[in-house]
Amino acid sequence: MSSARNLSVALRRARVPKPRCFIQTIVSRGPSRVATRTFSVTSAANATKEIKYTSNAYPNLKRDPKFAEITAEDVKFFQELLGSQSAVIDGVTTDAADDIEPFNSDWMRKYRGHTTLVLKPQTKEEVSKVLKYCNDKKLAVVPQGGNTGLVGGSVPVFDEIVINTSRMNKIRSFDEGSGVLVADAGVILEVADQYLAERDHLFPLDLGAKGSCHIGGNAATNAGGLRLLRYGSLHGNILGVEAVLADGTIVNSLSTLRKNNTGYDLKQLFVGSEGTIGIITGLSILCPPRPKAVNVAYFGVESYEQVRQAHKEAKSHLSEILSAFELMDGRSQQLVHQSTGNKYPLEGEYPFYCVVETSGSNGEHDMAKLESFLEHIMGEGIVADGVLAQDETQFQSIWRWREGITEALSHLGGTYKYDVSIPLPELYQLVEDCRERLTKLGFVGEDDSFPVRAVVGYGHMGDSNLHLNIAVREYSKEVEKAIEPWVYEWIQKRSGSISAEHGLGIAKKEFIGYSQDETMVKLMKQLKDLYDPNGIMNPYKYI
Amino acid sequence: MSSARNLSVALRRARVPKPRCFIQTIVSRGPSRVATRTFSVTSAANATKEIKYTSNAYPNLKRDPKFAEITAEDVKFFQELLGSQSAVIDGVTTDAADDIEPFNSDWMRKYRGHTTLVLKPQTKEEVSKVLKYCNDKKLAVVPQGGNTGLVGGSVPVFDEIVINTSRMNKIRSFDEGSGVLVADAGVILEVADQYLAERDHLFPLDLGAKGSCHIGGNAATNAGGLRLLRYGSLHGNILGVEAVLADGTIVNSLSTLRKNNTGYDLKQLFVGSEGTIGIITGLSILCPPRPKAVNVAYFGVESYEQVRQAHKEAKSHLSEILSAFELMDGRSQQLVHQSTGNKYPLEGEYPFYCVVETSGSNGEHDMAKLESFLEHIMGEGIVADGVLAQDETQFQSIWRWREGITEALSHLGGTYKYDVSIPLPELYQLVEDCRERLTKLGFVGEDDSFPVRAVVGYGHMGDSNLHLNIAVREYSKEVEKAIEPWVYEWIQKRSGSISAEHGLGIAKKEFIGYSQDETMVKLMKQLKDLYDPNGIMNPYKYI
Repeated sequence: MSSARNLSVALRRARVPKPRCFIQTIVSRGPSRVATRTFSVTSAANATKEIKYTSNAYPNLKRDPKFAEITAEDVKFFQELLGSQSAVIDGVTTDAADDIEPFNSDWMRKYRGHTTLVLKPQTKEEVSKVLKYCNDKKLAVVPQGGNTGLVGGSVPVFDEIVINTSRMNKIRSFDEGSGVLVADAGVILEVADQYLAERDHLFPLDLGAKGSCHIGGNAATNAGGLRLLRYGSLHGNILGVEAVLADGTIVNSLSTLRKNNTGYDLKQLFVGSEGTIGIITGLSILCPPRPKAVNVAYFGVESYEQVRQAHKEAKSHLSEILSAFELMDGRSQQLVHQSTGNKYPLEGEYPFYCVVETSGSNGEHDMAKLESFLEHIMGEGIVADGVLAQDETQFQSIWRWREGITEALSHLGGTYKYDVSIPLPELYQLVEDCRERLTKLGFVGEDDSFPVRAVVGYGHMGDSNLHLNIAVREYSKEVEKAIEPWVYEWIQKRSGSISAEHGLGIAKKEFIGYSQDETMVKLMKQLKDLYDPNGIMNPYKYI
Repeated sequence: MSSARNLSVALRRARVPKPRCFIQTIVSRGPSRVATRTFSVTSAANATKEIKYTSNAYPNLKRDPKFAEITAEDVKFFQELLGSQSAVIDGVTTDAADDIEPFNSDWMRKYRGHTTLVLKPQTKEEVSKVLKYCNDKKLAVVPQGGNTGLVGGSVPVFDEIVINTSRMNKIRSFDEGSGVLVADAGVILEVADQYLAERDHLFPLDLGAKGSCHIGGNAATNAGGLRLLRYGSLHGNILGVEAVLADGTIVNSLSTLRKNNTGYDLKQLFVGSEGTIGIITGLSILCPPRPKAVNVAYFGVESYEQVRQAHKEAKSHLSEILSAFELMDGRSQQLVHQSTGNKYPLEGEYPFYCVVETSGSNGEHDMAKLESFLEHIMGEGIVADGVLAQDETQFQSIWRWREGITEALSHLGGTYKYDVSIPLPELYQLVEDCRERLTKLGFVGEDDSFPVRAVVGYGHMGDSNLHLNIAVREYSKEVEKAIEPWVYEWIQKRSGSISAEHGLGIAKKEFIGYSQDETMVKLMKQLKDLYDPNGIMNPYKYI
């Protein structure tokens, strides 16, 4: 990023008294181009290691004997039903273990199931017939999209049949007048966004796994990501859902209308239900016009209190064009530096960093707002140093310092990931308290005798959403016990959420009580029983 | 509006070739002030007429004998429970008909019930005890907020006990950092918005009845209104709901977090459920910063096709600052003119008018965007004439031409109101088809021998939401039969919604099948049975 304009040169108060002149030169570059990011997640360090079976990692979990075992007859039924060879991966009557493995385990290589059958229906009618058969025969299933989740929600624990949505991958319609997209559940998020980009719109959701995740899976997990700050949650943007219940009932709630007050808004139940009450096969979603100008800045900040001040000023100065306010701690940026070998964006090192993005319809206006914001936060000494992307390459490069954290961590071994929401005043305190706790217990250190390599915090500050990540040399019950339930108790005391955007899956199932009271859990179980009385949908997980 | 700048003078292409100069003078006036509107709804012409009982208007509806009748013993229980004298209006053991009447009938004077008891609990615990008692005794109830609904949803049909939320009227907390407001259900929308205005925020919902309606009622009916275009639906903005189920169970889902993926999002079921599964007692809602600059323009347009073009250009030019795009037909504006006696904003008369509002954080930037928009639509001849509000008075005045339609109609006698959503290309066609149909049937005319005075269309164009209003000299079955189910069939053919934002209530109950299929209705009834097995919550309505 040597060519990125370094605000420190001109704006650091102590050195240059007239920041205004410098900012003018930034403005003169004109509106920035529309930029997009792509980012692939791999887990290089772990790639050669065998993944532990979830059934071994959770020895208390036993296969529920009420579920039938898959037979050759079942396989035959599905082969005849789905027709195409590629729609059934049969590990029951053939040796297909290698083909099935990618569907049995997650990308973090943390969860691994024992299934011997993967089905890829292509239509809602096929999904309906598959589920009806499974429900009648008491065969357990696990719905699966792009399998990019972080809580083990989309892979089997035992021999649940994987119903993968990858062959339901058609964009059905897009109306430029209203901005409403209707698409199959298995459309990849990035594909949908590219399709929209060609039509000057954007998908109102963006996240690191966009190149692999399915929009149906995004809906089923109520994914949050980077654009929530600006475009709001999927509960507001999804206008319609088409889904199939456990008994094969097709729920057609695929309205394309922004307003439709005709009865209970049942589609909302599927958003965030993690495949436990039905399989989403299609959805309609309101997509905003694509912003004509996008800018991104990267700051070094001396304290969390100053990060909060910068956030407050960003909301005030950038208002309707603020599209991201991301927080990364110093340790997380060191890890990205070590992982990528890239030169730091700023000269010095700081305990905190922020990425601030604006998206708007007029580059000059946006730049003027950004200018006023920068002038204020540099002038007041709220941030210590900063850079502003000057072109698409720098834009991508800055975002990589935020989005590269997950990959950087994956090179260290295993990662205990906690995706939590805490009121802003205490958001980062959790990382400090956790680091202190694990250090006092003697777990944290540089050499191989210490189980913990790093305790880092980053996340979507604009949404009060922190990712607490504890990088370990390998997963160990000893470390896990030191973190849990301590971390959940800490969050409960602050009325936070133990899962902000990643969901419950198997990872948080037993901890829901820290964020929901008994009545709520009882009401949720009541709904589960209503829609899936045999409990075949994604068992062993969620609530 | 003689002092409002008339764009026609400068911008109508045929007359002035250089609109730019004129627009500069607009810009020089500086950013507009933050403006607010208030509007009270009255029904003057009808005020002296007796309101017909709903039970007479719907002779097929019979009181369900499974419900108990209210006894003196019940009244005593409620009086002891609620303590305060003002919390119980007792028409059972005393003659309180006049005091009860405002709770028995709606403001449109179209629906009227027979209740003899009104309760005003002050806490969720009191609501819980009231409902538990009613559920045990099989006493039917109707939850009521500000009683400003348009579909008869908030008044009794027979002797259902009114549970009114007006004494639950405390703002519980507001966090300026996150913008999250937590308040009792009975807080009046305008009170909440004023409270927020003092803290530089706004309530993400605005509608004509803001001076009377309760935010709990807004949530229960999933109210849409004027700010939905900009801030999205309540399903996205409401972060938490506190409610009481029929059996007295208190549902505490009052999270203040923007992200919280810990189980089914049950609170969504209460949003838009019209008091049929529980009573909302409190809610938390995400409130955006109050815009620093608000501008409003009023246009005359020659055709619906040009209205659509203007809408498209508004979305493109105004983008993130567009906060309203309202459509009014010529007839609706004639009625406002007749009702108020105000001079028309424009010199000529046009078949269509639009109100376009912008809200942003920088008045100069907003005006530049508005300028570019105006220059384009005037230059291209998309709109025929227009004015731009120059101050708060003109701002209010322009909005009155939109918001005054409801009142203007009420002076004519009765109004058949259809609040529908239709894809934009055919949105206004419904009004034309309806007018033609009723005219052909000989119903429409100027003198008193014709039942129909006017067929008008207006609404939230930006949300594809049309209000079709048929003003009649008095309500008649003959006219009603000519409209229904014809209007619903028309909407069904276009995959529209028979209720965009007003809800079902009693008015649309039997027509839900035109917008929801059998499976959806069956699933809704299943939910109703789950949460209210005795059916005591707002019976005879909704689904």
